[in-house]
Amino acid sequence: MSMQKIVLMLVIVAAGGATLAMAAPTVEDQIKARQSAYTYMGWNMARIKAQAVDGEVPFNAAQMQAAANAIAAIAASNMSSMYSPETVEGTGWKPTRLKPEFFQELDKVGEIAGRFIEETARLAEVAQTGDQAAIARQFEATADACGSCHRNYRASE
Amino acid sequence: MSMQKIVLMLVIVAAGGATLAMAAPTVEDQIKARQSAYTYMGWNMARIKAQAVDGEVPFNAAQMQAAANAIAAIAASNMSSMYSPETVEGTGWKPTRLKPEFFQELDKVGEIAGRFIEETARLAEVAQTGDQAAIARQFEATADACGSCHRNYRASE
Repeated sequence: MSMQKIVLMLVIVAAGGATLAMAAPTVEDQIKARQSAYTYMGWNMARIKAQAVDGEVPFNAAQMQAAANAIAAIAASNMSSMYSPETVEGTGWKPTRLKPEFFQELDKVGEIAGRFIEETARLAEVAQTGDQAAIARQFEATADACGSCHRNYRASE
Repeated sequence: MSMQKIVLMLVIVAAGGATLAMAAPTVEDQIKARQSAYTYMGWNMARIKAQAVDGEVPFNAAQMQAAANAIAAIAASNMSSMYSPETVEGTGWKPTRLKPEFFQELDKVGEIAGRFIEETARLAEVAQTGDQAAIARQFEATADACGSCHRNYRASE
């Protein structure tokens, strides 16, 4: 079964109201957890950009591996369990920016989520090599995968 | 070199003001990133507790592996880069609860951080086995490692 299909299934199970992860997490807890996950992935993407892409900070291969591993492990951690349908509105650390279309286009969401998981896994693989240019290229591919969800399902601030 | 020594060195470098991760992250960004990291680790610890310890939710080995991997990868992601000395006060998603003693007891902080990284890595290893009772035991060891920092360096809410 493809990763996209698996992710899609998980999204659909979550949409059906099953408790994928824990007993009855609140809307606030789910939104707070996903805002935290994306914020910490963003922090680590910024570390990779600063060192591998922009060269603002000296390149440190071990730090890049650790940053990429965190991003990939978060991406693969059943994020759909934070998207029960009632979380279309609500406040975690701040009001959610999720668009209602997310729950109306689960096929497309599953495809985007599958690509996101694949690109972040690839980022972690490439980071193991310590090849700065290759990390910079895979950073761009990963950022594009993140952006495809933002463009479709995240409201502007 | 032991993991504790490495962690301690990283903490000391951070305390010296070096930009470990990216060029000049703000106090707000550092506090927000670390609050996010701990919140998402907490979300995943709750998933493991619900399935492996309390049995509130049916045990799913793949989910436990993913949750433990996220916790371990976050723990190993150079968290000291979010603790520059000026972050002793400030607000990320909410005001920081870090006690000033953190920066006055770097030897002890390094030991606690080292144990935290080791126990979370062990949690990820044990989760690979799919052995629910072993995961439950290592959950407790990991929670205790988290708690040793909370007891010493996190103010009550």
